[in-house]
Amino acid sequence: MGKIKVASFGVGVIGGAAARFILGEKQQMEFVGAFDIDQGKVGKDVGEVIGLGRPAGIRITDDLGMALSDADIAIHTTTSYLRAAYPQLESILSHGVDVVSSCEELSYPYVVDNGLSEALDSMAKENGATVLGTGINPGFLMDALPIALTAPCKSVRRIVVTRRMNAASRRVPFQKKVGAGLSVAEFEGAIKGGLISGHVGLEQSVSMLAGALGWKLDSVDIGAVEPVIAESGTDAGYVSIRPGSVAGVKQAARGLVGGEPRIELNFSAYVGSEEEYDQVEIDGVPPVNCRISPCVHGDHGTVAMLINMAPKVVAFKPGLYTMKDMTLPSAFL
Amino acid sequence: MGKIKVASFGVGVIGGAAARFILGEKQQMEFVGAFDIDQGKVGKDVGEVIGLGRPAGIRITDDLGMALSDADIAIHTTTSYLRAAYPQLESILSHGVDVVSSCEELSYPYVVDNGLSEALDSMAKENGATVLGTGINPGFLMDALPIALTAPCKSVRRIVVTRRMNAASRRVPFQKKVGAGLSVAEFEGAIKGGLISGHVGLEQSVSMLAGALGWKLDSVDIGAVEPVIAESGTDAGYVSIRPGSVAGVKQAARGLVGGEPRIELNFSAYVGSEEEYDQVEIDGVPPVNCRISPCVHGDHGTVAMLINMAPKVVAFKPGLYTMKDMTLPSAFL
Repeated sequence: MGKIKVASFGVGVIGGAAARFILGEKQQMEFVGAFDIDQGKVGKDVGEVIGLGRPAGIRITDDLGMALSDADIAIHTTTSYLRAAYPQLESILSHGVDVVSSCEELSYPYVVDNGLSEALDSMAKENGATVLGTGINPGFLMDALPIALTAPCKSVRRIVVTRRMNAASRRVPFQKKVGAGLSVAEFEGAIKGGLISGHVGLEQSVSMLAGALGWKLDSVDIGAVEPVIAESGTDAGYVSIRPGSVAGVKQAARGLVGGEPRIELNFSAYVGSEEEYDQVEIDGVPPVNCRISPCVHGDHGTVAMLINMAPKVVAFKPGLYTMKDMTLPSAFL
Repeated sequence: MGKIKVASFGVGVIGGAAARFILGEKQQMEFVGAFDIDQGKVGKDVGEVIGLGRPAGIRITDDLGMALSDADIAIHTTTSYLRAAYPQLESILSHGVDVVSSCEELSYPYVVDNGLSEALDSMAKENGATVLGTGINPGFLMDALPIALTAPCKSVRRIVVTRRMNAASRRVPFQKKVGAGLSVAEFEGAIKGGLISGHVGLEQSVSMLAGALGWKLDSVDIGAVEPVIAESGTDAGYVSIRPGSVAGVKQAARGLVGGEPRIELNFSAYVGSEEEYDQVEIDGVPPVNCRISPCVHGDHGTVAMLINMAPKVVAFKPGLYTMKDMTLPSAFL
């Protein structure tokens, strides 16, 4: 197998990190093109824009045909939302190029807009291309991994997945994103103002789990983003948190059958969480209780999932697929 | 999707357990045939032979064409060894029927006999059928699961997988199988006499892991089965173990690159093991350390893997495949 040729669709935070990883470390891939509409980036060498420390010999272009001219697959990283991604994915597919995307809603798009999902699937098939939405969450920790962990079960009654992150050990933008250090009133204002928002993808993960198991859910219940209130004071370096103020966020989602929660996802990220972990509890025959500790690093994980799924997407049959339908995921070295 | 129609090739311990599960609980499958060459079973109702408690309305036959006449897939459970399985698999494939097999060596057959593996692949493709070897171990705990756990890694340096079972909580035949209660001399005799044998599948798991990651191993080193010596006395109900006598077995396997162990598998099963667990430690970026505790129940797990992979095998393209190439595994309900 020759090197897989990759182009970036979007050179923002995630697209830039993926490009930096391919150009800097991932010798099994060839970086062949970069598309962005930001006129502050167009025409510049992609190495300069992403902080590679050397020119990559590839200029960012707003001409998609040029960016994709030599690509096997595009890494699409511009939006969390299916409807915003749709015309972009359509134009990539029209070039017959495969897509792996960080678009959260694309990870299980049927619950957002089934018609749009079917249109993408048809267009992919017509153009002999494959589309997958993936990432660390959604894409792995709260869906693909728990799905795989049900494989040794003769029956499954209930699945509970918990991701708990200690915001104290994260980057400052992450601490800000979870509202660490705000008063409760400030937090509520930040929610209203859209400065703090819910995790996009919980609905996708619940629905993908149900889809894999063949469960027909009566409803998917996505809880609001809620503040985690600090009980004692903490100094996290960047923020110092007083008792009674906000330490971070939590959010839960449930999939219900006959009023009973068969799937429960619990996400929390706050300063002061003692242990960080990703946990899957399967109430089944046999029971499977799995804990990854510390929790998987999200920034590395997102880039890794996009890169690691790329060769599997390139080798897969044409169409729109989700992680539950794909080849067993893995790193490749 | 209609019910998947399943036939048994072999109505022994595992085949019988799988048939009992399908006939007794698995309403999403239809049991349509049972093949065995044991003349003590041929002609009898399969429900009677497997202890279902009621007739199944299907007689065990030694006419393979009759057993498979209505089957989408055969569950093959007669042997651990590829060369013994080969003519049986050939005859199933000649009927154009898919196969999911508990044959341990078939889980990654290329390292046993590449020519035979290629012949199976060709024959499967010619007959439009799919063949997969799977189970709990090999098939999941020491290969498919660790492979999936590398997916969020940008790089992987080393993988260590440990399965530790407490034989005290297992069936008496299992305690006998691991030599619990024997003296060291008796244990050595049991090894020589073939009464206690190594775990078949460690070579398959090491090689599948390396294959998924794209590592070229210099060698695969399969350790001997060794006794675990009891330090203190234990009473496990069936056996009482004196200090200095055998509590059970351990075995290790390694995959080496340049003299360095990049893959390490450690299996142990003995009376007195405090904690039972399945553990995967990935030395990578990011690191992933995962523990399933207690360890996954092997008897349930083997049957579940065969049954749960069946619909994925039926839907898969023709050919011989291994768990690393297959669709993400899952239960289905």
